[in-house]
Amino acid sequence: MSTEDPKNTLDFEVENMNFHRLLVAVDEDDSTSSIRAFNYAVTLAKTYRVPLAIVTILETGDLNIYDSLSPDVLSDHRQEVLDKINQYAAKAKDFGVTDVTPLIGEGKPGNIIVNKIIPDWRPDLLIVGSETTDKNRLFIGSQASYMAQNAACSVIVVRANDM
Amino acid sequence: MSTEDPKNTLDFEVENMNFHRLLVAVDEDDSTSSIRAFNYAVTLAKTYRVPLAIVTILETGDLNIYDSLSPDVLSDHRQEVLDKINQYAAKAKDFGVTDVTPLIGEGKPGNIIVNKIIPDWRPDLLIVGSETTDKNRLFIGSQASYMAQNAACSVIVVRANDM
Repeated sequence: MSTEDPKNTLDFEVENMNFHRLLVAVDEDDSTSSIRAFNYAVTLAKTYRVPLAIVTILETGDLNIYDSLSPDVLSDHRQEVLDKINQYAAKAKDFGVTDVTPLIGEGKPGNIIVNKIIPDWRPDLLIVGSETTDKNRLFIGSQASYMAQNAACSVIVVRANDM
Repeated sequence: MSTEDPKNTLDFEVENMNFHRLLVAVDEDDSTSSIRAFNYAVTLAKTYRVPLAIVTILETGDLNIYDSLSPDVLSDHRQEVLDKINQYAAKAKDFGVTDVTPLIGEGKPGNIIVNKIIPDWRPDLLIVGSETTDKNRLFIGSQASYMAQNAACSVIVVRANDM
C-alpha cells in the first residue's frame, strides 16, 4: 500500500504556529486594504500580546519637482505623515495593543520596508494591504508583490474585499 | 495644528478582523515552509473554528516526457498525491480542526489555485509556503509570488525561517 511507503508518509508533528513580532505597513491614503491590514495587525497583536510596529513611508517621489525642491513643503509633508502615524499608534493602543512602535521611512515603500525597516525591527510577520485607492500611486500592488517576494519574514497581503 | 485638518484625521473605527474560510496549499515535497504554512493554517482553523481546505497540485509538467506518456506512472503519481493529501487532512483533524476538506488539482500550481481552486472554494485567506526545498522545482517562489499578486483573497506567504 503506497501509504506505507516511507517516502510518501508525512513524518512531522503538527504544531501550533503563531507570529511573535509584527510589522504593519499603512499607506498615506488610508486605502481600504490598508485599513483592513491595520485591523488584522491590531487583532493579532492584541490576541497574542505581541509587539506591533506601524510603519508608513513618506514617498518623496510623489511630490512634484517644484514641491520637492521646497524645504517647507517637504517639512509640512513630513509633519503630516508623523501626525498620521501617531494617530494610528494611538488607535492601536486604544484598541488594546500594549506594545506599539510607530515608524517612518522615506523613499520607495517596498525597498525601504524590505531593506531598512525589516532588518531593523526584525518582525516575523509583515502585514500589508494589497492596493491603494489612488490609481496613480504604487504603494501597494507592485509594492506588496515586491515585499511578498523579498521580505526576510512571512508576509500577509490583505485584500480590500474578499469574495 | 495639522492633526485637526480633516483630511489628515483618521476617520475609521478599529475593528477585530479575522478570516473565516481558509485554504492552505501544501507542496508535494513537504518543504519546511510548506509544513510551517500547514501548521499556521491548522492553528488558525482550530482557534477560530473555521473551515479549512488543504490543496496540493499534481504537477504533471514535472514528470518527464516518457513518464507522462505512461498512464500507469501518472496513475501511480495521482495515487501518491491522493494518499498524501489525505494524510494532511487526517493530521489536521487529529490536531483539532473539525471542518477539513482535502482538494487536489492538476497542472501549474499558481494558475490552478488562483483560477480554479479559489473560485470554487472561495476562501478569504490563502496560506502558502514561500519556497520548495528542491531547487529544480518552482512550486513556491515564483508560484507564491504569482498567487500573492493574483488571488482574489488575502494571501499569507510563510517563510521557512524567520530572522
